[in-house]
Amino acid sequence: MEVFNLRDFEDMAREKLDPVFYDYFASGAQDEVTLAANEAAFRRLALVPRILRGHGPPQLAGRVLGCESSMPVLLAPTAFHRLAWPEGEAATARAAREAGVIMIAAMLSTITIEEIAAAGGTLWFQLYIQPDLGFTKSLVRRAEAAGCRALVVTVDSPALGRNERGDRNDFHDLPPGIFCANMRGDGNVRQVRLSPEISWRHVEWLCGETQLPVLLKGVLHPADAAQAVDCGVDGLIVSNHGGRQLDTTPATIDRLPVIADVVGGRVPLLLDGGVRRGTDVVKALALGASAVALGRPVLWGLAVGGADGVARVLSLLRGELENALTLCGADSPGALTKDQVVG
Amino acid sequence: MEVFNLRDFEDMAREKLDPVFYDYFASGAQDEVTLAANEAAFRRLALVPRILRGHGPPQLAGRVLGCESSMPVLLAPTAFHRLAWPEGEAATARAAREAGVIMIAAMLSTITIEEIAAAGGTLWFQLYIQPDLGFTKSLVRRAEAAGCRALVVTVDSPALGRNERGDRNDFHDLPPGIFCANMRGDGNVRQVRLSPEISWRHVEWLCGETQLPVLLKGVLHPADAAQAVDCGVDGLIVSNHGGRQLDTTPATIDRLPVIADVVGGRVPLLLDGGVRRGTDVVKALALGASAVALGRPVLWGLAVGGADGVARVLSLLRGELENALTLCGADSPGALTKDQVVG
Amino acid sequence: MEVFNLRDFEDMAREKLDPVFYDYFASGAQDEVTLAANEAAFRRLALVPRILRGHGPPQLAGRVLGCESSMPVLLAPTAFHRLAWPEGEAATARAAREAGVIMIAAMLSTITIEEIAAAGGTLWFQLYIQPDLGFTKSLVRRAEAAGCRALVVTVDSPALGRNERGDRNDFHDLPPGIFCANMRGDGNVRQVRLSPEISWRHVEWLCGETQLPVLLKGVLHPADAAQAVDCGVDGLIVSNHGGRQLDTTPATIDRLPVIADVVGGRVPLLLDGGVRRGTDVVKALALGASAVALGRPVLWGLAVGGADGVARVLSLLRGELENALTLCGADSPGALTKDQVVG
Amino acid sequence: MEVFNLRDFEDMAREKLDPVFYDYFASGAQDEVTLAANEAAFRRLALVPRILRGHGPPQLAGRVLGCESSMPVLLAPTAFHRLAWPEGEAATARAAREAGVIMIAAMLSTITIEEIAAAGGTLWFQLYIQPDLGFTKSLVRRAEAAGCRALVVTVDSPALGRNERGDRNDFHDLPPGIFCANMRGDGNVRQVRLSPEISWRHVEWLCGETQLPVLLKGVLHPADAAQAVDCGVDGLIVSNHGGRQLDTTPATIDRLPVIADVVGGRVPLLLDGGVRRGTDVVKALALGASAVALGRPVLWGLAVGGADGVARVLSLLRGELENALTLCGADSPGALTKDQVVG
Repeated sequence: MEVFNLRDFEDMAREKLDPVFYDYFASGAQDEVTLAANEAAFRRLALVPRILRGHGPPQLAGRVLGCESSMPVLLAPTAFHRLAWPEGEAATARAAREAGVIMIAAMLSTITIEEIAAAGGTLWFQLYIQPDLGFTKSLVRRAEAAGCRALVVTVDSPALGRNERGDRNDFHDLPPGIFCANMRGDGNVRQVRLSPEISWRHVEWLCGETQLPVLLKGVLHPADAAQAVDCGVDGLIVSNHGGRQLDTTPATIDRLPVIADVVGGRVPLLLDGGVRRGTDVVKALALGASAVALGRPVLWGLAVGGADGVARVLSLLRGELENALTLCGADSPGALTKDQVVG
Repeated sequence: MEVFNLRDFEDMAREKLDPVFYDYFASGAQDEVTLAANEAAFRRLALVPRILRGHGPPQLAGRVLGCESSMPVLLAPTAFHRLAWPEGEAATARAAREAGVIMIAAMLSTITIEEIAAAGGTLWFQLYIQPDLGFTKSLVRRAEAAGCRALVVTVDSPALGRNERGDRNDFHDLPPGIFCANMRGDGNVRQVRLSPEISWRHVEWLCGETQLPVLLKGVLHPADAAQAVDCGVDGLIVSNHGGRQLDTTPATIDRLPVIADVVGGRVPLLLDGGVRRGTDVVKALALGASAVALGRPVLWGLAVGGADGVARVLSLLRGELENALTLCGADSPGALTKDQVVG
Repeated sequence: MEVFNLRDFEDMAREKLDPVFYDYFASGAQDEVTLAANEAAFRRLALVPRILRGHGPPQLAGRVLGCESSMPVLLAPTAFHRLAWPEGEAATARAAREAGVIMIAAMLSTITIEEIAAAGGTLWFQLYIQPDLGFTKSLVRRAEAAGCRALVVTVDSPALGRNERGDRNDFHDLPPGIFCANMRGDGNVRQVRLSPEISWRHVEWLCGETQLPVLLKGVLHPADAAQAVDCGVDGLIVSNHGGRQLDTTPATIDRLPVIADVVGGRVPLLLDGGVRRGTDVVKALALGASAVALGRPVLWGLAVGGADGVARVLSLLRGELENALTLCGADSPGALTKDQVVG
Repeated sequence: MEVFNLRDFEDMAREKLDPVFYDYFASGAQDEVTLAANEAAFRRLALVPRILRGHGPPQLAGRVLGCESSMPVLLAPTAFHRLAWPEGEAATARAAREAGVIMIAAMLSTITIEEIAAAGGTLWFQLYIQPDLGFTKSLVRRAEAAGCRALVVTVDSPALGRNERGDRNDFHDLPPGIFCANMRGDGNVRQVRLSPEISWRHVEWLCGETQLPVLLKGVLHPADAAQAVDCGVDGLIVSNHGGRQLDTTPATIDRLPVIADVVGGRVPLLLDGGVRRGTDVVKALALGASAVALGRPVLWGLAVGGADGVARVLSLLRGELENALTLCGADSPGALTKDQVVG
């Protein structure tokens, strides 16, 4: 089977993966309303091209929070890459480095952040602030030492979402030999704690603990976005966790304009959720995102062909993005305007 | 078959029940437009979580019209439980008591209100005001004597709705041995009368006849809500009778904000119709309901496993509600705000 | 097969009728967008019941343009009843008389207006103004002499709509022995002429030629409604010819409020198109119609059982209408208010 | 198989054509969202007829940019007609001439513009401005010499859209013997260059180079429409390239009112994309178009029967258009008003 777009990769990955692991990656919470909404909202929004702009091929490269990226697409933090490919996140990281894009390494990776960093690309580190602040601090120190360039704090997970596909598959434990490598200390693998007690104070504490820029991932309400900026946070990721946490949250692209309005450019905005096409990226950029993060398609690429598969996913999306920008008359992401997206 | 959510219970119940009885419980009036609309409207509304609130697990318990409830979910009044399980409402009542939730016992129960009360939980009594006020008064006295804590007057039934599934099944009489136990006196079972002659005067009369709080169930128009409050009614249930009466009435969740606006907090509002998920409960609470009432899913639980089945339905919904509140950043139902629901 | 609603009649009629005749009655113009829209719009509009009104069963009977009708439902003019039943319009007229409703006899009937009038019920006469005014006048005189109580001028037919089902069936001529009985004179059957040259002047001429009230059928634009009232017309029928003329015209129920606004009660409004349920009738009444006209369901009843079939259709609809009015809290059509219909 | 409307022609053409060529003509970019949207938008818009206008059959003939046309429908420029029929554009041009409509000959025709002009009808010439202005000028001179009456510059193609059906079919080269005849010089066939460097200056240059009226095809943003008029362009075609370039652009009929507003009648507007019915043409005319251009249906007619097939397509559409205008109460396209189209 040849692949021509990111959805083809999902079809191929479904054939290759253990169905239980496929479901783990593909599924969303409960009725998967949000999972479907993320993609449907991109499809519903229309793009109005500008014409006769008279320039060369668009410049995709730029900086996100000070880090160079060959295009405004990051790898979203996703867990358990070794379920998809034996090398796990090492393969993903090599592909990211070769593509010149930023990988947001997940706290729940199946190799350590140090092993991921060995690939040599630009890394950010995603974490759930753990009630044990000492342990959280140690994770931050390791991320810093490994050369991570930003911290991404996931804030939409005061509890774990309800995954019914996982329940139906009775999938509650990783297979033998696969585990959360970052959580291992003194012989044991520590449980990840998702706690509703995590608060703005913890974010303030973290900002004080590190020199790295701190982003919050999972912001959907404008009042929270405002508070985050006031709190000194360096960036926001508009995210509903790919529809895996609270079901029936709105599509992220539908929330982006609301968040962009309140933030008013004070910090960069990123978005994830449902990005499958170059035109999706363009819509997010036009509505105020500095970049988007790509989740499941990276996993499909990984499952299909390891680092090569991820590379091909990124290359396909880059091609689509370049084509979409060109057809929109934009010589760079910054040339897009929000009036180019209509409901 | 394992059950993971309330809809699974319906599937299991369909397998267990006589198809004619299943249809009786499952069906709505005529084209079942409203039946479908109730659920579809919840799915269409989106929930915007708040983040980093910093508190413990949410408190679900509270009071509804002075009665303690372990969560803001009541058992809606539904008829003929012995069609679903031999013990009928006795099993339902035991499950409600053990779950610490209020059961609204239906006038059209298949055991008497006294037998239902024997289970020992918190009961409210639902009735259709009968043109024979003497008989109505005797029902009220029995409910009071049985310890019921509120009266719920159904006001959407000046006539019986048109159930075409029932017509096609030629289902017009209860099977031998099953009857409306509350309607029995001096050897006969009295017919229930649904009459368009029942009016606000009857409601006023009833309020004067009893010390119990009186709620009206079936309010959809804001002018009626206003009049009810002026009339001294103690609470309202926004309901379209689960889509069983007038077909093409709006989804209840779509009427809730309109009713909440006009009532302005003067009396508590409840809602029933289409509640199948913890997120549905959260949406109703955020839009102004003090609690919701659960109808058909209770019957599916009852059909599947008697009191244990009902207990499992309530436990599943409680778990979902706790999860949804946590993910919304709310430490109690009262912490939700209406801006967390978007169209 | 038992029938429980008007749609069941269509299913039965489809089995009984020659498929070509079935298609003739059932079809709409071109892509049948309007045909579907008429029914879909009724389904989309929601009805908000009022409660506790305290009255007896609703009064359905009333007057439409001075004619008594046992309910606010007329028989819409439809052509060629002998394709559905040997006696044709005679059977329909008997059923209408026995049901106490007004039949709008079609100019394109397959028995003469005099033969239809022999049934003894209340008749209105529908006509297409023919460019040959002498012939038009003779039709009017015959209708008057036959006791018709109003004239209904169809104004949406300056040309014949495009019926592709008919084209595919190669159905262009009536079968032997069936013809437009009113068009027969001196041995020949005159062709019906649909001409774009018919204008307001012809309507004025007609109003001057007869003492009967004149209604225009096929009004969808408010400016035309205003002009009609100024022109002295006695009533309007909001109609898109059941979706048989210009395809993609709006659903009639969606145009009714616009027309009602501009007419402001100066003349009675009727509506046809897509009425299949008692709740549909209620919606039209609430939005300003004095009555509705029923088209295809009458033909299905006729095809299924002649006069008895039509009687059963009318009886079913009357039952549904009475039930819907009762459940809306209305003791008569006039008690409905437009705020009881929500989008 | 008999054909009754333009969609029938597509069904027949699908049977006749090599599936790869069928896909080439039928497909749109990527997910074909825009391809579907163009037709869906026409279907969604409703037409409100006017009545009793009192005139003869509508006049379809008129002038577009000074050229007579027997109806307000042009042949949109489409490539590679010899994939559909051996004679290619020669057959199309004969049909256009006999129908009295303007053919916009495509730069990517498979016979030369001179050969197309030999058919003797009214031609406009469509071109992509080539970075090699000398070559572009030579094309313009040839078009002028061949008697073309206007130039249509396609401006939505700074790059080629992504056609995945073509990719899946591995269709990247024309079959032997078929080539872009206008691009042939000195023995070779020149590649067509689509370049983002083409700008307003090129358009100004072209306007200065020719006496012919210049239209821009592919305008969707009102600011571009305004700039085009300021730039001295003589007409605009609201087009999304039939959904073949940037996917998820809006339906053209949805952009027409926005463009018409800003242009304010200063230059004529045309529209293409999704026109399949006479009512579609009427909607475009009512919303401000002077005429529409017909793309794929012409190709289906060509594939089915060469010049005769195209003639039949045009004749069917003319009949539908005449019928739709008559039923709208319009004696000419100019009599339509925008209030006759409702959302």
